[in-house]
Formats: sequence, C-alpha cells, structure tokens
Amino acid sequence: MPSICLDEFITSPYALKEMNDLVICGTIGLDDIETPFGKVKSTLGGSGIYASLAASFFIKPGLVSIVGKDFPDEHLQTLKSRKINLDGVSKGQKTFRWSGFYEFDMNEAKTKKTELNSLKNFKPILPAHYKTAKYLFLANIDPELQLSIIEQASKKALILIDTMNYWIENKKPQLLKVIKQADIVLLNDAEARELFKTPSLILAAQKTLQLGAKYVIIKKGEHGALLFSQKSHFSAPGYPCENLKDPTGAGDSFAGGLIGYLSKRGQIDEPTIRKGVIFGSAIASYCAEDFGTLYRDKINFKDIKERYGIFREIRRF
Amino acid sequence: MPSICLDEFITSPYALKEMNDLVICGTIGLDDIETPFGKVKSTLGGSGIYASLAASFFIKPGLVSIVGKDFPDEHLQTLKSRKINLDGVSKGQKTFRWSGFYEFDMNEAKTKKTELNSLKNFKPILPAHYKTAKYLFLANIDPELQLSIIEQASKKALILIDTMNYWIENKKPQLLKVIKQADIVLLNDAEARELFKTPSLILAAQKTLQLGAKYVIIKKGEHGALLFSQKSHFSAPGYPCENLKDPTGAGDSFAGGLIGYLSKRGQIDEPTIRKGVIFGSAIASYCAEDFGTLYRDKINFKDIKERYGIFREIRRF
Repeated sequence: MPSICLDEFITSPYALKEMNDLVICGTIGLDDIETPFGKVKSTLGGSGIYASLAASFFIKPGLVSIVGKDFPDEHLQTLKSRKINLDGVSKGQKTFRWSGFYEFDMNEAKTKKTELNSLKNFKPILPAHYKTAKYLFLANIDPELQLSIIEQASKKALILIDTMNYWIENKKPQLLKVIKQADIVLLNDAEARELFKTPSLILAAQKTLQLGAKYVIIKKGEHGALLFSQKSHFSAPGYPCENLKDPTGAGDSFAGGLIGYLSKRGQIDEPTIRKGVIFGSAIASYCAEDFGTLYRDKINFKDIKERYGIFREIRRF
Repeated sequence: MPSICLDEFITSPYALKEMNDLVICGTIGLDDIETPFGKVKSTLGGSGIYASLAASFFIKPGLVSIVGKDFPDEHLQTLKSRKINLDGVSKGQKTFRWSGFYEFDMNEAKTKKTELNSLKNFKPILPAHYKTAKYLFLANIDPELQLSIIEQASKKALILIDTMNYWIENKKPQLLKVIKQADIVLLNDAEARELFKTPSLILAAQKTLQLGAKYVIIKKGEHGALLFSQKSHFSAPGYPCENLKDPTGAGDSFAGGLIGYLSKRGQIDEPTIRKGVIFGSAIASYCAEDFGTLYRDKINFKDIKERYGIFREIRRF
C-alpha cells in the first residue's frame, strides 16, 4: 500500500503554509455508536480525527493517518473546513471501522466489532514539510509505528503520546521505548495501573517519569485528570456533565485540545501544561455531550473559554 | 440498657463548658484491621470516634454513643486527652466490634465479622447541655436513631448526616426522612448512585437537593469530593497519598474535620463549606496514612494547614 499524499486531500496553500507547528498521528475511522441516549451510524471517528478536530480550535494541525476509498466526501469536507492538513493521510482500500455501545453507566465502551481494514498495513510517512513540526501527538496506535514517526520527526519536537491496554498487553517493550522518548505521556487510570502492576496512580506516575518522560497525565474520565512532573502534582477537576451522551473520543479530544493549546502558546512549562489540561478537559466535555464528533460545529472558541472559566470556579476555595 | 452518663467518662468542667457547639453521634468500636501494609488488633474505631477525633483539631465536640464494659481505659484516656466530651456516651455490656481487611487495591473494605453487641439496643439520649448545640453530625447509624436525635436537638442546629448502603437497602423511607431534615448530606459515590438508581452523580446530587437538603457532598475516595448546592458546584481534589496504609475511617474523619471547621468558624455559607471540605480532606488524608486513628497524635494543626496549602497548590492553573 503506497503512502502517498492524495490530491483530493490537499488543503488550501494557506493552510499548508501554516500547519508546520503541530502534527498528529492517529486513526481515521467510521464508527457505529449506541448509547442509552441514541445511536449514530458510520460517523466520523478515530483517534486522529478526534484529536485533530479538538486541536483545530487553536491551530491548523497536519494529520498522519490512512483512509479507504470508501471514506465519504462529506467527512473530507468537514476536515478541510476545519483547516486540518491531510498531506500525511495515505489511502488504502477500506477505512477502519469500529462499532460499539455503552451501557447505562457509560464508563466503558463495549466493542461489537473492529474492522482494521487499511489500518493493518499502515506505514506512516511524514511528508517533508511535516518533519520540522515542533509538536507531535502520537495518538493510540501500534507503538512500533509511534517509534517510526519519532525517527522521522525533528529531534527537537515536543512529543505527546497516548496508548491503550491492547499495546500494554501485546507490545509492552516497544511501548516502554516510546515512553522513554516522550515528553508527555497520557494514560488512563486503568492503563496506568496495568502498565506498572500497581493500584496506586501516584506510583504508576512516578514509574513513568523514571522511564524518562518529563510529564505524565493520568486521565480519570468523570473524575478529571492528574498531571505529574518530577517536582509537582496537578489535579484537574472533572467537568460536571449534565448531558453526557457519548463518551467516545473524549480522551482523544482532551489530548488534541491540550497539544493544540501548547502549540498555539509555543511554550512548554508546567503552568502552561496545567492550562492546556484544562482546555483539553473543556473540549472533551463538549465532545461527550454529543455523539461522535458532532459537537465540533456547535461550539466556538468563546464556548471553550467559558467552560475554562467554569473549571476555575468549581475548584475555587 | 440504661442510657446514662458515665461518671468515669466525664471530662473536665473546662471542656464541658466549651463543648456546647458541636455534637457528634456515631459508633464507638474496637476494630481488627488488616491491609497489605500491616495489621492492628482491637484498635480504637467507629464512626463517632473517627469524626470526634478529626473535629477535635478545631473544637471540643460532645459525643453521643455507646460502649461496653470491655472498653479499654487506654482508649478512654485518649478521648479525654483530646477534650472530647463523653457525657452523651452510654454504657452497655460489650463494645461494638468490627474486623475487616483490604486487598491490594485498597478501594473497598471487606468485612470479616461485625459484632453489634451493645449497639443493638442503642437509644441515643442527648444530655440537656447537648441540646443547644448549634452543629450536629449524625454519622452512619440507623436512620431511625438519627431521626430521634434530630427530634431531641435544637431546631436551629445545622445538621450534617452520613449513611451507608445498608440503610439505603433496608431503611430507605426513614433515610429519606433524615435527608429531608438535613442541611448537609454526605454520601459516597456508590451510595449516591444506589440511592437514586442512577449512574450520574450530578443527577443523584440534584435529587438529594430536591428532597430538601441545602448541600450535598459526594465523597469519591482517592478522587476527592464534590459539593453541590442549588446554585453551584465545587470539586475538591483527592490528596495524592503516597503512603496510604489504611483507609478505614477516612470518610468519618473527613466529616469530622468538616463539621469541626464549620463549628469553629461559626458560619455556614458556600465559601466556608468549600474550605471545610478541604480541611476535612486534609485530615482524612492523614488518617489514611496510618492505621485506625493512630495519626491523631502524630499531627497538629500546623500540619493540617500545611496540607491545606498543598490542596491549593495542586489545584492552581
């Protein structure tokens, strides 16, 4: 499968010129999702998509991924309209598909079916103009692919990585290599506990830092997120979602919002990352209030800032 | 079983005179506890004890409870040394006993054995000088007993109540009556979900407020606590305990710290309750770092204030 840039995916020269700060690598998918509040079919999904859409509130990200010939033009137009650069998206036969559902407590997605399709042979190639990106988000994909992107990217890039239990169980040595090279590691609470075989999130965070990561963020769903560095600890509150509809992609949206904010700010220090965690949480909370990525056109940056303000208020004492 | 004030429990006149602001009703017990970090036998325990000790960092509380003749003098001296007034403690045959253990994840106590003993016939009677207390904490006991204390107490008292899943399952109508009369209701997350048959803590909190409570606090263990009023929401972080040894009584210590702080401050508004939640969390975190109530003599108010400061720092963005 050739890893070519697709003519029809090339966005405007204007977008191209400005996208060299942030590159996101993750999946593009078509999802069937059912929750107690409704269902959607073949909706735009995948970790790369959720993250890119969230980041696009701050910056024009370049996406590295793969889609099939069946990928609807409508979704393509959505990505173009958000100024997401698709030069790094290669084309295979059939788009990755996932179908799943949530039961009443909405805490865990139950998978009905996963069709990897084109993803099986995905070999991410960074286009030349992506290689100077200063910020890199490697969403949940095979750690071997994450390593291959790190090799292609600028050595100076800030690297944010995510993963999932499947890779912890099946490619742990490779994943540990990725963590060693990452600046910021994202794990959810269950993954953190599983990776280091400890019930203590604090201990899991310490072990991640000992591996070489500068920061680790543990996502706890409704309970918020924890940020750890060698020196300090930040506890971000969960947003009190009253209208939770579909948590799919909230974690990827969190990561995309975080890295989008960091790229926009152009600086990396703990106070900035704390703010980024809150911006990421704000976007993730909007994401979970609608199905799939449908929140994307219903909010603007003013809404995000408003929710950022609510986060300040709910933790004031 | 007569509900008399015991001569040997009467504390100094000095303490007596000053204790009329806060009354706490809960159990006194002797606990055997085993965690992955060690074990203790016949240690001082019970909801009334944990709460009173925590409150005693702020004020001299009066305790309403029952003990048996087997209650060690050593524990009695501990309570006296903390200026906890015991005029409301009646004496039965044998002290309530609980033995339990925690497995590696420490999230849930597993009960080996519960011996109610004197508690079976406990009929709490408020001594005359307790009846003017302005603050009342009814820890986890039978809701019918909670109602009987509310009837005996001043109608102007601020009432904080706690409960447990057993009463939700077995005395729900009585518990709902208690909630209607309470100012502040404490529930842990599982209890909140069970009481209102919803996975949403937000919805459970709203339903508690609809019953008539002015505030509801949902305790989430390591994830902190949520405070809700009709108008607002506060999310208190969990303290990042690195040396968690025994979570027994942390919830009661939280409640005792909260009500102790509120009594000391002598005012009830949301900003004050938010601060009380943090003081309660600080004391609860110390409690969980040692077995039973053993933390009590190892810290002082300066330590609590220091941890209060850490709570501020981990929330800053």
